[in-house]
Amino acid sequence: MTQTILANATLPDGRRADIHIRDGRVAAIAEAGAAPPDGAQRIDLAGALLVPGMIDGHIHLDKTFVGLPFQPHRAGDTVAERIAREKELRRELRYPVEERAIRLIRQVVAHGTTALRSHVDVDAEVGLTGLHALLRVREAARDLVDIQIVAFPQSGIIADPGVADLLDQAVRDGADLIGGLDPAGIDDDVGGHLDAIFAIAQRHGVGLDIHLHDPGPLGCFELRQIAARALAAGLEGRVAVSHAFALGAVDDAELGRTVQALARADVAIMTNGPGPVPMPPVRRLVAAGVRVFAGSDNIRDAWSPYGEGDMLARAMLIGYRQGFLADADLALAFDLANSRGAEVLGHADHGMRVGAFADLVAIPAGSIPEAVAAHPPRAMVMKRGRVVARDGALTVGG
Amino acid sequence: MTQTILANATLPDGRRADIHIRDGRVAAIAEAGAAPPDGAQRIDLAGALLVPGMIDGHIHLDKTFVGLPFQPHRAGDTVAERIAREKELRRELRYPVEERAIRLIRQVVAHGTTALRSHVDVDAEVGLTGLHALLRVREAARDLVDIQIVAFPQSGIIADPGVADLLDQAVRDGADLIGGLDPAGIDDDVGGHLDAIFAIAQRHGVGLDIHLHDPGPLGCFELRQIAARALAAGLEGRVAVSHAFALGAVDDAELGRTVQALARADVAIMTNGPGPVPMPPVRRLVAAGVRVFAGSDNIRDAWSPYGEGDMLARAMLIGYRQGFLADADLALAFDLANSRGAEVLGHADHGMRVGAFADLVAIPAGSIPEAVAAHPPRAMVMKRGRVVARDGALTVGG
Repeated sequence: MTQTILANATLPDGRRADIHIRDGRVAAIAEAGAAPPDGAQRIDLAGALLVPGMIDGHIHLDKTFVGLPFQPHRAGDTVAERIAREKELRRELRYPVEERAIRLIRQVVAHGTTALRSHVDVDAEVGLTGLHALLRVREAARDLVDIQIVAFPQSGIIADPGVADLLDQAVRDGADLIGGLDPAGIDDDVGGHLDAIFAIAQRHGVGLDIHLHDPGPLGCFELRQIAARALAAGLEGRVAVSHAFALGAVDDAELGRTVQALARADVAIMTNGPGPVPMPPVRRLVAAGVRVFAGSDNIRDAWSPYGEGDMLARAMLIGYRQGFLADADLALAFDLANSRGAEVLGHADHGMRVGAFADLVAIPAGSIPEAVAAHPPRAMVMKRGRVVARDGALTVGG
Repeated sequence: MTQTILANATLPDGRRADIHIRDGRVAAIAEAGAAPPDGAQRIDLAGALLVPGMIDGHIHLDKTFVGLPFQPHRAGDTVAERIAREKELRRELRYPVEERAIRLIRQVVAHGTTALRSHVDVDAEVGLTGLHALLRVREAARDLVDIQIVAFPQSGIIADPGVADLLDQAVRDGADLIGGLDPAGIDDDVGGHLDAIFAIAQRHGVGLDIHLHDPGPLGCFELRQIAARALAAGLEGRVAVSHAFALGAVDDAELGRTVQALARADVAIMTNGPGPVPMPPVRRLVAAGVRVFAGSDNIRDAWSPYGEGDMLARAMLIGYRQGFLADADLALAFDLANSRGAEVLGHADHGMRVGAFADLVAIPAGSIPEAVAAHPPRAMVMKRGRVVARDGALTVGG
């Protein structure tokens, strides 16, 4: 079996080391400069920082327009209106989900993402076609990135009859988790929406990842409802809430009891470092024992013209929004898009240690804080022991 | 005189054109593909978007650590403490202002900045040494970028006796504008601080650019005090306030009367799209007739580990923070870092028209909204008719 040596890597702890890779895993972390084994392929990283692969905990592979000419945004005042605009665009553009998803995957892998969680729209109009497309994409891209799929009711469940059955079928067809969306804001029925998705999750023994944009005390109420159901269903540690803007816009008492409920039920919170709205206070959540992770969310789609799928730039944005300046805080922002994301997604073999998968990213920076602040193009990306990108560009097909 | 043709450019209005450059200016904007004049140098832009040079309306060339290894941030709870931390670092690092400034200039020019306004610290400790260094830098870098210098009382005026005299001397030595800093928050004396800096400005007939971080109603009170003094001093159109976070955190009535006062006195507002604090509502200000422009602010210095001096990425950040999604809004974000910045800085020869300076930037994008959203590395940067950068890297010395 051929062995690869990633020589002269700077480890996150500052040591210089040679990383031995065998069978897609880290076989040894040796002092830099030791003689390589016979026949080993040697890649000199010239002192670049080497970190485990970046984790994108929230992406919409089926929504992106990457690969098309730039699409002007079509405005909608409410979430419901914007959902309608997206459906219009989807009908007009006729650009297959698989082509878009594969293009975006190639882009995010070049930025160092080695595992991601993608939501996929399930509604009365598209049914399960998006899901089935992403299941094929997952197979086609398996040597580039690990993909988790969340069946996501983008048009609601109560508001869009039949979707609950579709979500149930989605899990039987291969979706890894069940999604949800603003039980109050979209479905006007907090209990009905949550009961429906928790029932499906419990029936199939899968986790949940729920979009929650509902603001302020309303959103916090819903978070506590979610936490209570996670406990009741025995789904501690398997439920995540994405966005949870509400945590950034309530008073300290309301925040405190909501955070406590999340911690008790081990409900994780995903943030993308949103621009114009409040965001969850990351340090406060982490200190209370709530697991926090990061994702890109929309990347040049009907919802947003922004985004490029670079999780190091995303860590920068999260840190910038949170006023993170100290090295320890920059490292925390990094972890949201790395080890903490891997933990929430359940990737036990992620990490910089012997035995872990050789999903690794080399960054021309001296330390993790510098990598976050500067987020330069990635020098190299390795997936399961195979180099898949160099200098910010993919080097393999597929 | 040699002529240069920038061929196959996509203009901001979408037309394909050949731009003729002579004597450092735009000599003609011709239909793409016409036969070039004899002996003209032809640079094919292959359809790249061509825009006027980016304007960085707020940078601190003397503060940056660019060129040094990454410096961990030293925390301070108050602005005064952080000023003290910066002075410590300045004493320890002993890395001359000129070297740092030149390095940063080379970086920002590679990103397409062709004119900038730099503040320079003037306090009892550094005196005018930073100013004198930047005056030399301005000369040394004159073929790369146009530099305006603001003499900036980083440690206050009332709190730091002797600084008013230093500021006066700064203008006599070559500073273009007089700065200010949180008259309430730093100097505890709104009237005293403002009277001092307006007196110097009036005496020498120069403009002002005042840092204002003071929040909420206090900051808005100070903004109205500044506007009143601008009117009284006959300095309409020559006063800017940088940051003005207060405009993002007051009720509608307070905002309304403050915006009205700014518009009446033609006081401009600079924003860098800050992360953790409120920011001025850009559309509201522009609609009321207030001139708004953009700047980088801190770039990897004692105040912030973030920043790279890319004004297209800065336009993205401002748009992202403001929830700008529509093409017209993305174009507005761009203008803050382009034509609107040029207007505030008084660069009448900036623009994409015959007779304007040939300060031009080619971007691999189809339109300005796409350029903002994606902010890809610049294909080419031209300063006064000379190509100074290609593919994101400087191609000339100096």
